[in-house]
Amino acid sequence: MESEHNSISISILKVSHVNSLSDEDFIITFGNLVENCPLVAAAVVRSRPFNSLKHLHAEICSFIDKLPVKGREGILRGFSIIGLPSSRQTEESRQEMKDSGISEFIENQRSKLSSLNKSYCLKFGFPFVICTRLNKKEAILQGLSRRLYNSPEEELHTGIEEVKKIALLRLKNLVSEDMDKKL
Amino acid sequence: MESEHNSISISILKVSHVNSLSDEDFIITFGNLVENCPLVAAAVVRSRPFNSLKHLHAEICSFIDKLPVKGREGILRGFSIIGLPSSRQTEESRQEMKDSGISEFIENQRSKLSSLNKSYCLKFGFPFVICTRLNKKEAILQGLSRRLYNSPEEELHTGIEEVKKIALLRLKNLVSEDMDKKL
Repeated sequence: MESEHNSISISILKVSHVNSLSDEDFIITFGNLVENCPLVAAAVVRSRPFNSLKHLHAEICSFIDKLPVKGREGILRGFSIIGLPSSRQTEESRQEMKDSGISEFIENQRSKLSSLNKSYCLKFGFPFVICTRLNKKEAILQGLSRRLYNSPEEELHTGIEEVKKIALLRLKNLVSEDMDKKL
Repeated sequence: MESEHNSISISILKVSHVNSLSDEDFIITFGNLVENCPLVAAAVVRSRPFNSLKHLHAEICSFIDKLPVKGREGILRGFSIIGLPSSRQTEESRQEMKDSGISEFIENQRSKLSSLNKSYCLKFGFPFVICTRLNKKEAILQGLSRRLYNSPEEELHTGIEEVKKIALLRLKNLVSEDMDKKL
């Protein structure tokens, strides 16, 4: 979209608009880049002005990386277990599942997914997180089976890297590409 | 309430019930002890079993204190500006305003509150947070006027201490006193 927007209800924002939002509107707009964790947007809102979409994303990643272990584990616990209905699952997450076309796959593999997810949560204390839009359906089950053998430290790291990919794609749904032009 | 409860929809829980909730139900139940910040509950859920209400509260405080500065600032930004309607204000916060009987006071002092809050947010980059249930109406305006002269570091500390008081009162609304008995 090429035109300048003047309402945060419009989905694609330009960089100038992102930088001129009130703190409140910024937090509302970007409050779910990380599933169920508006603290992330609230933490980076005063790092404005951003000169690109990548700049905003880098600030988010930097903030997440500086969280204590319990904070990063907590971020993973903001995500729902793939294939298990949850009242906490957000609209963004539902849409991602729909877009990735894995709903039917999940339905067919529910028993196997359920068993693997149970083992994963039991071992690591947080749900298996994967960027469904960047993975083929089969890769989810393979990833889950493979990642079960990781150490807790490796899996915290891997899960958080997936969170960052998901946040980038959600950000691209909200901010236009020309955010990458310098102000 | 004396009887044992078996549903998280019932407001007063015993410690044994808190400790036996699923991670998901724990995060749902305690997700707004800190306004708009479910990450706090998600971060401490695996510190169970708790042996008292104070134990759970201490874990929450410890987690908050370990957050980087931007995280603690972000926590304060989860709160709405007193006297200013916000779509992000939660039911808990609305109820606290109602219980403290300050709504009429706010109405009468809206102009002064608005001016002071504007100066406060401009100086510190986060809203003025005070535990309304532990302060007389007049103390809110006095506190706001006085705290405007603090340094950003002092005010971040003071605001976070108020957040902890609010979290403790919200916790006491959810968990029965006999949580203080040892398991």
